[in-house]
Amino acid sequence: MKVTFQIEGGSPVEIECNAGDNLLELARRANVAIDAPCSGNGSCGKCRVKLVEGEVETIPSRHITDEEYEAGWRLSCNTKVIGDCTVFVPDIASAYQRRMKTADLSSPEEVAIFENAKKEMQESGLPFDNCYEAIQLELSAPTEDDTMPDNERLTWGLQAALPVDDATIRIPYGVMVKLAGTLRENDFRVCVKGELKDNVFTCMDICAYDDTKLVGCAIDIGTTTVSMVLVDMATGELLAKGSSGNGQIRYGADVINRIIESTRTGGRKKLQDAIIKETLTPIIANLCRTAGIKATSILRLCIGANTTMNHLLIGVDADPVRMDPYIPSFFAWEGLTAQDLKLPANPIAPVVIAPNIGSYVGGDITAGTLATMMWDKDEMTLFIDLGTNGEIVFGNRDFLMSCACSAGPAFEGGDISCGMRATDGAIEAVTIDKATMEPTMTIVGEAGQKPVGICGSGIIDIISELFRTGIINARGLFAREGERVKRDQHGMGRYVLATAQESETGREVSINEVDIDNFIRAKGAIYSGIDTLLQSVDMTPDCIDCVMVAGGIGSGINMKNAINIGMLPDVELEKYKYIGNSSLTGAYAMTVSDAAIDKCHEVGANMTYLELSTYPGYMDSFVAACFLPHTDAKLFPNSIQQ
Amino acid sequence: MKVTFQIEGGSPVEIECNAGDNLLELARRANVAIDAPCSGNGSCGKCRVKLVEGEVETIPSRHITDEEYEAGWRLSCNTKVIGDCTVFVPDIASAYQRRMKTADLSSPEEVAIFENAKKEMQESGLPFDNCYEAIQLELSAPTEDDTMPDNERLTWGLQAALPVDDATIRIPYGVMVKLAGTLRENDFRVCVKGELKDNVFTCMDICAYDDTKLVGCAIDIGTTTVSMVLVDMATGELLAKGSSGNGQIRYGADVINRIIESTRTGGRKKLQDAIIKETLTPIIANLCRTAGIKATSILRLCIGANTTMNHLLIGVDADPVRMDPYIPSFFAWEGLTAQDLKLPANPIAPVVIAPNIGSYVGGDITAGTLATMMWDKDEMTLFIDLGTNGEIVFGNRDFLMSCACSAGPAFEGGDISCGMRATDGAIEAVTIDKATMEPTMTIVGEAGQKPVGICGSGIIDIISELFRTGIINARGLFAREGERVKRDQHGMGRYVLATAQESETGREVSINEVDIDNFIRAKGAIYSGIDTLLQSVDMTPDCIDCVMVAGGIGSGINMKNAINIGMLPDVELEKYKYIGNSSLTGAYAMTVSDAAIDKCHEVGANMTYLELSTYPGYMDSFVAACFLPHTDAKLFPNSIQQ
Repeated sequence: MKVTFQIEGGSPVEIECNAGDNLLELARRANVAIDAPCSGNGSCGKCRVKLVEGEVETIPSRHITDEEYEAGWRLSCNTKVIGDCTVFVPDIASAYQRRMKTADLSSPEEVAIFENAKKEMQESGLPFDNCYEAIQLELSAPTEDDTMPDNERLTWGLQAALPVDDATIRIPYGVMVKLAGTLRENDFRVCVKGELKDNVFTCMDICAYDDTKLVGCAIDIGTTTVSMVLVDMATGELLAKGSSGNGQIRYGADVINRIIESTRTGGRKKLQDAIIKETLTPIIANLCRTAGIKATSILRLCIGANTTMNHLLIGVDADPVRMDPYIPSFFAWEGLTAQDLKLPANPIAPVVIAPNIGSYVGGDITAGTLATMMWDKDEMTLFIDLGTNGEIVFGNRDFLMSCACSAGPAFEGGDISCGMRATDGAIEAVTIDKATMEPTMTIVGEAGQKPVGICGSGIIDIISELFRTGIINARGLFAREGERVKRDQHGMGRYVLATAQESETGREVSINEVDIDNFIRAKGAIYSGIDTLLQSVDMTPDCIDCVMVAGGIGSGINMKNAINIGMLPDVELEKYKYIGNSSLTGAYAMTVSDAAIDKCHEVGANMTYLELSTYPGYMDSFVAACFLPHTDAKLFPNSIQQ
Repeated sequence: MKVTFQIEGGSPVEIECNAGDNLLELARRANVAIDAPCSGNGSCGKCRVKLVEGEVETIPSRHITDEEYEAGWRLSCNTKVIGDCTVFVPDIASAYQRRMKTADLSSPEEVAIFENAKKEMQESGLPFDNCYEAIQLELSAPTEDDTMPDNERLTWGLQAALPVDDATIRIPYGVMVKLAGTLRENDFRVCVKGELKDNVFTCMDICAYDDTKLVGCAIDIGTTTVSMVLVDMATGELLAKGSSGNGQIRYGADVINRIIESTRTGGRKKLQDAIIKETLTPIIANLCRTAGIKATSILRLCIGANTTMNHLLIGVDADPVRMDPYIPSFFAWEGLTAQDLKLPANPIAPVVIAPNIGSYVGGDITAGTLATMMWDKDEMTLFIDLGTNGEIVFGNRDFLMSCACSAGPAFEGGDISCGMRATDGAIEAVTIDKATMEPTMTIVGEAGQKPVGICGSGIIDIISELFRTGIINARGLFAREGERVKRDQHGMGRYVLATAQESETGREVSINEVDIDNFIRAKGAIYSGIDTLLQSVDMTPDCIDCVMVAGGIGSGINMKNAINIGMLPDVELEKYKYIGNSSLTGAYAMTVSDAAIDKCHEVGANMTYLELSTYPGYMDSFVAACFLPHTDAKLFPNSIQQ
């Protein structure tokens, strides 16, 4: 039988299938993007499609109302195909890719944070020097009396021009094949770009005489979002920047589901194609256009990515990451080139991967730690990266401890019924009037945008405000009644932020007790992670001199509210600092600075990884943190106590 | 309009075209193989096709009789398309690829010659040692207490097992991506193959524990024929051998036409694909099947090829080879890998190119010179490689001189009206009875094979015999009349080897005065090359201690006849030695021996190249040699003088 996907704003896609096939799986096989943050276990309610024709079999879901069901709406993850059918797929993916609010240096604030980090790094011992050189040569054409062939002529010219004596010159394939033509097209006046290391100069590109630009590419590969900058490696100047969603998203919102998908037949290739061909390649192409350079001018790429993203990018078996004893295939690995991954860049450009230090603390964290400069300071710094997962590093120049929290996708809108990512229509900030219980909301998008759902920072605000106003209690259960508080037939309470009439979609935007419980577990995971890390070095929250918060969600977080609900430790607000996309900043530093690459590897080698799941006391700490703000109120003296 | 090629034994191919397009050009564009040794200048008469339907415009040719013309036969190079048409293309190419007699080690004689060369090389200072190692490792799986990731585990194991201390271990992409899987599929008992150089071990493959075979691939790329052997690099044993025609043949029989073709739009890629995708790739695949190995086991490839073949293989601009001042893009170049050329082999396997020393003395000659061992001897050796071109090296351990003769394709059957390559039906040896003038012929193929044409060795015999029997005079003109001697209306004589009735094709097989003149020029070019080379070092033929003849045609040559006609110098027959495919033997030596690679480069660097076309006295020498046997009869005391 046959399923036809009618994609909003796109061409229809058909796929052959068998009776009983799962609709979400089929969409994945057909490369049709359906948002599924919970990876198809029915909990997030995001994979909605509308049956246009034919017959399917669906398990009812709390995410689909009776009216919606009548209209044909189904969760694709709960739906089996039983005959030929046609389904309508809303264009969530492209909207999200277009408008996703992310730490990609697109705002002046982000740029300021980034420039500051850059300055700080330069000032404290990471010279922005690298091994790349652009050597301008004025050679002469061969004659009957000067019978040197092109490659010897080039070698001779380079040896004379290089700042070292008797360099060995390597001319790899990519340069060899264009050597004769480039010399002749430019009357033997050319610029050779390459890497000078240990007295060996490796030619990477041969260009016109005046084309001296040395370009690097720094990439942050998040589970959800990919951000990138092109950099002038001689000056450190940003040439172009951009971001987009990680194309692997359709194979699962979290790393575990992507690993499982990658272990299926052909899966590793599929996941690798999704990141390389569908995500990185178009961004690089775009950035090159913006910067007015050829992709072959990119001579080095540096990548900050979590352990799973690193494995899936390279195409290395990622299954060991999720399987006992949780030892990934590699922590640090050098030897990757752009041609290995078929990335649009100079084929022999090294692809430098910031090292992983465990299955769930990866290169994004080592690169981020590099960017925090905490490895260079006496002050005790707590570094928290809030992405799809939450990772925490604590320490200073003497030691570095790290751990990963299984926070789940709550901060990115998953596991919350009206949750969504920070795209148009997302409620990103909220205050609630204690007396009237009426909300005041900030919504992502242009003026007049009506609410669609709630993103991570909005959820923190809502829960903090619901708690402050006494609408919910410390367990997250509704304690007041009123216009905005509704209950379903089972008595489950919810707070309505926007009625069906007020919302963009005609569906109510609300947060219910299940959502709140999910979120409390997520924030409890973060807090207990911090707590356990501190305990492991016999310290308490008052030892913290500085809290650096990184990650896409971090930018929107109201830190005071995050403290109020017991997600972040109750230290003075002045100690908090939002540092943007620290993984990208770290990758940038490595792109322009050889010393930064060495330092990042040193940070990786010296950082201690704490496996929380097996750490004594962690579970107790987690359970204690699953209250608002915490079972031990003394830890949160500044939280609004009820 | 449209041309349809009906290919004998294949599927029809259609191509769109314009009125006036040349049929041979169209065939090339459509990738239809039509034999055209003269590259379309109308002289060889080999590019016959038969018009089935439609209309064309053809310039009449002496190669097509009136009856043949009536039947639809045309020379494709002389034919313009003027409307939709369908032409029948005889399957010359595939027959030739199947049955070509070539020096590819397929006969016991060739193998004996090869084994002898191999022994001689080993005995005199070229140890068959190389930098490749197969290291068997018995590792253990990671546990909670042994948390090393796979790549560190491998590094650690290799460092313990390698015969050197503290080796640096490089794990490139190809090994990294299969590392996790291979370790686990083999319970962590694996064999790692790689290159150990300067204390750096580069992992090239990771296999099952017992798979320890290290395979090399030696390739001779001739303009006409490609020969290849797979070699066990540990023992030197031949694992498989094979050959086929060079797929570039349809772009011209000689190097000049291929270079011209390569300079057209997309031409470089076309020529490169013809050798890599269409020729080398299938042979390697075949040989791997025969040897029962995976292509990724091939860890080194060594290539002996002429300068043009080297340029076209790599995809480097070959135009400088044929343009004044005739300085190719490179002589020696290191840095090529299998993945650069997309050859089926280990992706990082080095592809070692025997160095060129001039536009027309290439790596086939340096590799061949390596194989002759003349660089190690006191005796004066003359080394002649008779392929599509003729190259000559003279010297000993003290000096090496070389030159190239523009002999044209006569030795491979081109430029001779009934000439053909040494495939089924080729007359390869002839004697003529002086009294009756009747020929006795040896024909390539099974018993009862009727003649189709004449190959190189046959032409030498015929001309020698015609001269010996007085049927032709010293200028190559017919001097006797008889049954076998015919003349056309212009009085041009020809000797009939087989009448239309006696031949396989129904077309007479004969040799005419134009053919003989063409051949005399070719043999004159060879002899004057030798003569000039000797003169340049103030020597005469009696200084020659040894003459080594290599090349596909060499095997069939009757040396005495070659002396009789003044093609080779008149020294004692015992001094002549046929050495088979010396380019392949040299490539083989480089495959198994690192010392041989160094020696080959040394030979290339030390060999002097004599450009005959500008050498004073060469033209005189050539003109003097364009007689049978020579204008100076004293040079050929043993030739049968008339």
